[in-house]
Amino acid sequence: MPIERIAILGTGLIGASVGLALRSHGFAGNIIGWDPDSAELAAAQASGAIHAVTSDPITAARESQLILLSGPVFTILEWLDRLAPVLQSGQLVTDVGSVKGALCKCAIGRYNLVHTAGFLAGHPMAGKEVSGAANADGDLFAGAAWLFTETPESRSMHPASRALADEWHMWPEKFGCRVLDLDPARHDVLCAWVSHLPQYLSTALSALLEDEFPAKDEVLPIGGRALREMTRLGASPFSMWRDVAHTNTEAVAASLLALEQRLAHLRENLKTPELREEFEKANRFRASEHFSNR
Amino acid sequence: MPIERIAILGTGLIGASVGLALRSHGFAGNIIGWDPDSAELAAAQASGAIHAVTSDPITAARESQLILLSGPVFTILEWLDRLAPVLQSGQLVTDVGSVKGALCKCAIGRYNLVHTAGFLAGHPMAGKEVSGAANADGDLFAGAAWLFTETPESRSMHPASRALADEWHMWPEKFGCRVLDLDPARHDVLCAWVSHLPQYLSTALSALLEDEFPAKDEVLPIGGRALREMTRLGASPFSMWRDVAHTNTEAVAASLLALEQRLAHLRENLKTPELREEFEKANRFRASEHFSNR
Repeated sequence: MPIERIAILGTGLIGASVGLALRSHGFAGNIIGWDPDSAELAAAQASGAIHAVTSDPITAARESQLILLSGPVFTILEWLDRLAPVLQSGQLVTDVGSVKGALCKCAIGRYNLVHTAGFLAGHPMAGKEVSGAANADGDLFAGAAWLFTETPESRSMHPASRALADEWHMWPEKFGCRVLDLDPARHDVLCAWVSHLPQYLSTALSALLEDEFPAKDEVLPIGGRALREMTRLGASPFSMWRDVAHTNTEAVAASLLALEQRLAHLRENLKTPELREEFEKANRFRASEHFSNR
Repeated sequence: MPIERIAILGTGLIGASVGLALRSHGFAGNIIGWDPDSAELAAAQASGAIHAVTSDPITAARESQLILLSGPVFTILEWLDRLAPVLQSGQLVTDVGSVKGALCKCAIGRYNLVHTAGFLAGHPMAGKEVSGAANADGDLFAGAAWLFTETPESRSMHPASRALADEWHMWPEKFGCRVLDLDPARHDVLCAWVSHLPQYLSTALSALLEDEFPAKDEVLPIGGRALREMTRLGASPFSMWRDVAHTNTEAVAASLLALEQRLAHLRENLKTPELREEFEKANRFRASEHFSNR
């Protein structure tokens, strides 16, 4: 029996994009939305990302088969905590948060037990530097990875919740995602490298340029695509990335330190043959088919 | 009297793109091309970037009003040196190199004298991570800055050369460029920040990821737009950037060191309120109208 009712708690950029993607890929059930920001909620409804809004997210969650949590990691953690006692087996909670270790740990003892709802952590590797339902896009996930992090606990969730999890797995595939399963700790290390490091790097570069060129009218008019691309994520909201910094600190710090050392190495070798080696390694990284035609 | 004959020495990505841009924007004269790589030269001719090829670049330069030098900085320096004694007043040499101080210094005593050709250094702020005439594009410069670096010497070039310089100034405008004049030393500092730093940063990040994930099949499938953008310039050719590293060493090293320190600051403040300040500064940098709709 297919999922008939989904509650999306957090109808910002990603939550609303999931709603749009579900509807444009043939989801026939009902999607009810809630957001702490009533303007976000209204925008999500206006765009068609959700069928209806609620001011009572607990009741909406109780009455849904699938509850999708979207927002900063700490917000998702709070919802996991609040919803655990009011949901039951035969329901499934999933999320789209950027860090998985802390969420999976929080779920232990609260979800995936005989009488509780199931929790299957998920993470679409797509986003924008701008937030909000107004920027939501049903095609945002096409071609991206959608990571799930099954755990020993989630693998033993109630069969009625597992049936929902199996069904939910199929939706990212319909959205055009590569669906992959990763260990939560490994997920957090890999995402530190491919997603969190690029974000903090772009923030640091943008903040540095803001300090170096407060007037900016000398530097911006001459910047080209390289400057635009490397600073694009500088527009990303603090609220999302504060939570990533707090919940994936060790892996993020390790990747930042490694990059600092790499930049120092390159700087010290601007005039030595080592520079060629750096370019050759970088060329090899980019020679992967993954980067063709993108 | 408009320019009737242009020699492009170096018909790779930028040289051939200039040829294509000239022809698609109504240049009615003749463009002759030369390149040390005969395949590049053939590709440039096949694409229509040049009308004819030559195996005798010195004679072609002698017989042209405008000589455009394109390629790595050291190659342009060599051509400045070789061409000075064979050209004369009423001719103009220009270039598209990434560093201007070294070129303008080389031109002193060789160009812009009573009996010599004029030299006006130029730099389109557009490029690609891939090289070669096959990737050339007549629209590459649309919306980009095209920097000129006039010097006391260039300002006193022979009037017949100046007439060519004035005419040449109009072409980047026709290509859709913002044409700006900068002091060569200031050019090199600003370009270190907005172009050279992004390049070496992308190279360092790509090389680091290549070392961390030699198999890459664990990390590439989960990467999204952030990874693609931040490593795109990792594909850039060493030959171009070796010369930038050698001829703009001080400014590049200073920008790299500043970024290393900034990343360390961010890393040490992942869990403090300082992180918010970094994001707010980065947000301000990106809030500029320059980045809207790009």
